Amino acid sequence: MLIRGGAGMGVDRAKIRWNGWGWAAHKDEFAQRDDLWKWLASELGMPALLATPARPLEELELPGGKLPLPDREALNAIAGAENVRDSAYERAFHALGRSYHDLLRLRAGDLSTAPAAVVYPRGADEVLAVLAFAARERIAVVPFGGGTSVVGGVTGARGPFQTAIALDLSAMDRMIEVDAVSGTATAEAGINGPALEKALQAKGLTLGHIPQSFEFSTLGGWIAHRGAGQLSNRYGCAGDWLVAAKLATPRGMLSTGDFPASAAGPHLADLVAGSEGIFGVITEATVRVRPVPAMNEYRGYLFRDFPSGTAAVRTAARDGNGAAMLRLADAEETRLLRAFGALGKVRRAADKLADAYLKLRGCADRPCLLIGAFEDPVSRRSFAAIARRFGAVDLSTAAGERWRRTRFQLPYLRDSLLDRGVGVAKVETASSWAKIDALYAATRAAIDAAIRETVPREGARGMVMCHIGHSYPTGACLGFTFVFPRALDGDIAQWSKIKTAASEAIVANGGTISHHLGVGEDHLPWIAQEKGALGIDVLRAIKAALDPEGILNPGKLLPPGPPEDG
Amino acid sequence: MLIRGGAGMGVDRAKIRWNGWGWAAHKDEFAQRDDLWKWLASELGMPALLATPARPLEELELPGGKLPLPDREALNAIAGAENVRDSAYERAFHALGRSYHDLLRLRAGDLSTAPAAVVYPRGADEVLAVLAFAARERIAVVPFGGGTSVVGGVTGARGPFQTAIALDLSAMDRMIEVDAVSGTATAEAGINGPALEKALQAKGLTLGHIPQSFEFSTLGGWIAHRGAGQLSNRYGCAGDWLVAAKLATPRGMLSTGDFPASAAGPHLADLVAGSEGIFGVITEATVRVRPVPAMNEYRGYLFRDFPSGTAAVRTAARDGNGAAMLRLADAEETRLLRAFGALGKVRRAADKLADAYLKLRGCADRPCLLIGAFEDPVSRRSFAAIARRFGAVDLSTAAGERWRRTRFQLPYLRDSLLDRGVGVAKVETASSWAKIDALYAATRAAIDAAIRETVPREGARGMVMCHIGHSYPTGACLGFTFVFPRALDGDIAQWSKIKTAASEAIVANGGTISHHLGVGEDHLPWIAQEKGALGIDVLRAIKAALDPEGILNPGKLLPPGPPEDG
Repeated sequence: MLIRGGAGMGVDRAKIRWNGWGWAAHKDEFAQRDDLWKWLASELGMPALLATPARPLEELELPGGKLPLPDREALNAIAGAENVRDSAYERAFHALGRSYHDLLRLRAGDLSTAPAAVVYPRGADEVLAVLAFAARERIAVVPFGGGTSVVGGVTGARGPFQTAIALDLSAMDRMIEVDAVSGTATAEAGINGPALEKALQAKGLTLGHIPQSFEFSTLGGWIAHRGAGQLSNRYGCAGDWLVAAKLATPRGMLSTGDFPASAAGPHLADLVAGSEGIFGVITEATVRVRPVPAMNEYRGYLFRDFPSGTAAVRTAARDGNGAAMLRLADAEETRLLRAFGALGKVRRAADKLADAYLKLRGCADRPCLLIGAFEDPVSRRSFAAIARRFGAVDLSTAAGERWRRTRFQLPYLRDSLLDRGVGVAKVETASSWAKIDALYAATRAAIDAAIRETVPREGARGMVMCHIGHSYPTGACLGFTFVFPRALDGDIAQWSKIKTAASEAIVANGGTISHHLGVGEDHLPWIAQEKGALGIDVLRAIKAALDPEGILNPGKLLPPGPPEDG
Repeated sequence: MLIRGGAGMGVDRAKIRWNGWGWAAHKDEFAQRDDLWKWLASELGMPALLATPARPLEELELPGGKLPLPDREALNAIAGAENVRDSAYERAFHALGRSYHDLLRLRAGDLSTAPAAVVYPRGADEVLAVLAFAARERIAVVPFGGGTSVVGGVTGARGPFQTAIALDLSAMDRMIEVDAVSGTATAEAGINGPALEKALQAKGLTLGHIPQSFEFSTLGGWIAHRGAGQLSNRYGCAGDWLVAAKLATPRGMLSTGDFPASAAGPHLADLVAGSEGIFGVITEATVRVRPVPAMNEYRGYLFRDFPSGTAAVRTAARDGNGAAMLRLADAEETRLLRAFGALGKVRRAADKLADAYLKLRGCADRPCLLIGAFEDPVSRRSFAAIARRFGAVDLSTAAGERWRRTRFQLPYLRDSLLDRGVGVAKVETASSWAKIDALYAATRAAIDAAIRETVPREGARGMVMCHIGHSYPTGACLGFTFVFPRALDGDIAQWSKIKTAASEAIVANGGTISHHLGVGEDHLPWIAQEKGALGIDVLRAIKAALDPEGILNPGKLLPPGPPEDG
């Protein structure tokens, strides 16, 4: 009934890029795509793209020292000398996450946030010991899962301390127990997406949490930032599927109950979800799992415009349609997706036929692509009826399967763009359905205007795209992607200006500052407005109760506080 | 699109019993039921039942004084003199809730917890002003919704202070806004079940939260104790349908975001749910609402035993069967329900025919009644198939409708029993499915043994009943009801002994100390074990951040802390 898993194996960090996305061995499929780059240059109002390569690690100096010997020896004694690492690669790899802001810094060779060392604990006891040691010695500790945060969640910041170490959980990746009767699984928090799903699917089960970072990100990271996977419509966000957690803190272990529901006060697991490493280090989690579905179909629909597509998604979400995903791209995102085709030619001949057909059906002007993932025939049928009702054209499974095949590839494109003087970044939010149209329009306009103000030459412009990626009975998530010519003499200022404009528009229009990426460093300027002064006080009080020295993940989630007493 | 409601009107407290359940005008349907009382005496191993009436209010003295004049005048200035009340009836009404322990004290005339006055604020500003005043003057404040807590959640305890006042929210009962596009509604927290549903159903919507206390309890109370209604399988518990809340605290108003989902740190609404009045006073809430279902059918099934019924409920919950309720009584509870019949004769002639039929179907020995509530044909059909698979007999809608008609009546029976020397109390819990069988057996045995140890005479015994009232993909709630001869010379000690035995069994077998009733005073001895020492520290830190003087609802939810510094 209860099945205990064996020990897993961490991912070798050297196989993953230190200053870009994903596998070091990943081949740049876009390198030879001159057609694509020409098209893009024209879209961005640039005569041609530039060559803007990143600086290699060998050229760089790592500021800040390694650990003093006594500290190093103390950590060796806790975790084993081979698990306390301070090579240049390890320190650079753990200096930052993978936000656009992070990539700008990494590519420019700014490693000022490199931790003094990286510790790979082998179990919860070692995590507790490291935290107790660090609290005593006043060393900052930055918990690190897959390192794929795109909001500055794993920056190796020291805060008010002399030294920071990264605590890389990737060696803690065992499946501990699968409880098939209750439909739950318990695993160490460092387990990554593929390892977790492999262990579960061997038992016919799945968590169904498939974020774009799936190959690299970890169970603990998903919970720490309250992530949502692509199939969240069916499987929920981390806050939904989390049943229980163990949180190692400088004051000891906090273990939350594993009840299906409880009225015994506030649920402490709800505080672990979204804690972003500032309250403690998630060492273990129990999650709700489900049978692997018998069916798994990705299907495309084309709506004549964004409002009609939005109405269809809202209708489905309100009706409790069980689709696993309903991902509706706006007209601009649809145009880009079509341009990229199946990562084949920019415009295939077949597309011209399709255009003619779509025009006939009233979809030609501003068509919007929806990709639906269906895991049972009932939700597929009922969504097909909704799509028809709102005038969509069924594109069959070809469009859907094309999207699925490439769904983990897009982050690599960001590096290819950065190599060519082009920036690409994201913001995302969520609001109630009543506010979603205004939120969409205002945020889109704010990003577009900010890009125009920051582009390096007259006439240059950005592409601002959006999709509804996650939907709920009461509202939805909007995810904006924007591509723009880099202001090479002020890359970070450019990003900051666009980010600020987008965030101000989001907050002013009733959106949350993040639906699924977290707060990290990037959203700090808006968190107090969202949570309120008393809300921030509450979060600070929780932190003080669990991490009185304030060593955990400095500078994330909570804005800088008033000066400390004493 | 957005519909604003008008002002409501509170319920006149004089129309509700001060020392028992429900409407003062309620007629005791059981008074003349000698057949029932004879049957019960025989079941309990007693020669006859006794006459044990409650003491009338006129006989009693109210210990503790009224408010000193300056305090009274300050409150008058805030809330209006007519809304600051201190008649004997008001003070007695607000002295305690409606737990078995409360009823024993009220019926014996123990009004030692009567508040010095009762304030009925008319809006959030007045609540904030009362809290600021009370914090300044060091007066305890006990938030009071419907007063139906059955865990000691509204005891007018003074804690370390000289004086306590009750803050009765029942005049704050306006529907503020119905957002039909987003499927949410915002109301003042003092609105009670019927008023809330009336306002929603006028717009074709429903919250679907129908606890047994529905007629009296309030939106704020449901959230404060993380309640679950009878239809929770479909509509969820308070923690599920709560979207946003306003919590008035001595330090000001905490307003949580109304997003459908957010990754901007822990959700503060999750801290309001289950806060039991110790962090603040819920003044307003936004909740998820749904269309009133076209269909609404209550149907009975008889299973041959509890394990086969449990397996059917688990199968339905795991499969995502959309039944609104699947309430499975164990054999003992089924026996009592049949004895009470349709509140008609103890055993109707028709029941003998039914017995013969059930015996033929293998259901005669220990049959277990399941009442299902279905709001769509799909869930009804799919549950019918599950019931057949597990060998249940379909009892049609007659059994279901009988249950529905009497679902709010049973709490009145408790008073009738108490009048006759018979006690009746409840405990409830939840666990994962893997633990549920052992939890059921151990808790049942513990209650049975404790009753036998405490009954007033040799050979007397209790009836211990249980039902699965709420079920989830990962587990379920067990609700135990037990009826027993009162130990009239030590009523409270008897209750304490049984309650302790039940709670110890629950905690030892992996159950939560409460699934839907809350912690209050009654579950304090076990809360630290459930939350852990660090968990309690976290909750204390939150309280200190919001209620630094500790004036709010003393003695609830959190165990007595270490002596304060200074």
